[in-house]
Amino acid sequence: MTVAVRDLDVKALAFDVFGTVVDWRSSIIREGRELGRAKGLDVDWEAFTDAWRALYQPALEKVRSGALPWTKLDDLHRMSLDRLLAESGITGLGAAEVEHLNRVWHRLDPWPDSVPGLTRLRRKFVLATLSNGNVALMVNMAKRAGLPWDAVLGAEPARCYKPQPEAYLRTADFLGVRPEQCMLVAAHNGDLVAASRVGFRTAFVRRPTEHGPGQTRDLRAEHAFDVVAESMVDLADKLGC
Amino acid sequence: MTVAVRDLDVKALAFDVFGTVVDWRSSIIREGRELGRAKGLDVDWEAFTDAWRALYQPALEKVRSGALPWTKLDDLHRMSLDRLLAESGITGLGAAEVEHLNRVWHRLDPWPDSVPGLTRLRRKFVLATLSNGNVALMVNMAKRAGLPWDAVLGAEPARCYKPQPEAYLRTADFLGVRPEQCMLVAAHNGDLVAASRVGFRTAFVRRPTEHGPGQTRDLRAEHAFDVVAESMVDLADKLGC
Repeated sequence: MTVAVRDLDVKALAFDVFGTVVDWRSSIIREGRELGRAKGLDVDWEAFTDAWRALYQPALEKVRSGALPWTKLDDLHRMSLDRLLAESGITGLGAAEVEHLNRVWHRLDPWPDSVPGLTRLRRKFVLATLSNGNVALMVNMAKRAGLPWDAVLGAEPARCYKPQPEAYLRTADFLGVRPEQCMLVAAHNGDLVAASRVGFRTAFVRRPTEHGPGQTRDLRAEHAFDVVAESMVDLADKLGC
Repeated sequence: MTVAVRDLDVKALAFDVFGTVVDWRSSIIREGRELGRAKGLDVDWEAFTDAWRALYQPALEKVRSGALPWTKLDDLHRMSLDRLLAESGITGLGAAEVEHLNRVWHRLDPWPDSVPGLTRLRRKFVLATLSNGNVALMVNMAKRAGLPWDAVLGAEPARCYKPQPEAYLRTADFLGVRPEQCMLVAAHNGDLVAASRVGFRTAFVRRPTEHGPGQTRDLRAEHAFDVVAESMVDLADKLGC
């Protein structure tokens, strides 16, 4: 594989972030538990976190379908959170506390290999986010976690949520490269398939515990991606960085 | 001034780049001279550089007025360069050489205080570009020069050239802050006045040789900006970084 990879004319790596670069589930569960202890809430934070994330694709779909006008992910997260708090009968959080909880997505921890791997990859490639997360979310996350992006792009500047083709194509256009000079790095087969359909190169990074110990999907690369890696450090090895 | 500045609720610094952060004129003259020697061209590169930059605002104005659809600065630079090469009777450059010359804007050197000053400012604030330069230009420049941006924003993601209000407002919106939480840092009175009209805070950084030794404009702050600084290091001092 290494020889083939070296023959590619890739200039930029575009990263999915939630699950691929950061461990959203553990981060939210941990903060939720701390909040629960501080406020005396009786909440199953694993179930709460999974339920919150389960509302993610349906919320994006409202924007993709046109049922909602363009809405930032922070605001979609907040709509889902308000619904979940009401359905779970969680009261006792003030307005500032709910808003702080909603912004837990700005405070997600990277997987341990992410910062070392990205730091090596950045020597050779332009590194950009290609996430459905909004710019402020990505910037705040990067500043806190030390993620060394060259550019924070993705759905909000493209005004289009993945997996719609324009999300990928507009990101490559912002970076001034052709789609085939851009490699999507993601832990999700569907995201990579959508990117490859518009001409992107693809790198699958395996994250078998993104959804917790019982994860059943995206456990392995299900298509012929250009690179398959076990971590960002492994990706750096395989891309010759 | 220091006390007043500390009372401000500024979260993000948005930077004009050409002239404010990088010394475009010296950089282009130097590269032009090297090219001229290598190719045996008899060109006054100071005059050539000034003439190229003189076509900048008229080109932007074509987009602002709607005479041209949205066009990236790289492409506007190229239209001006092609015209200038023809008018100057400069021949003997191949297609790849002309394109490389056009991308000299991606290879501008920072003023000596820029990297040290930005590095200090970044500890306290989110740092974003708010330039009329396109994203790829800004990303390539930053990677070469070591400019530590948290986000590369400005005209292209906003799809609007300064000094139109939306260029500033959409940048603040991407950063998730209110206009008054955003401070434009620029060496140009007009840019700062336009930003302040939409509610931005303002910092004037004096660059008295941007246009060469005979510079006549923007030699000093002509309005009551929130901060006036002699360099990015001085700005870091004045913002308590």
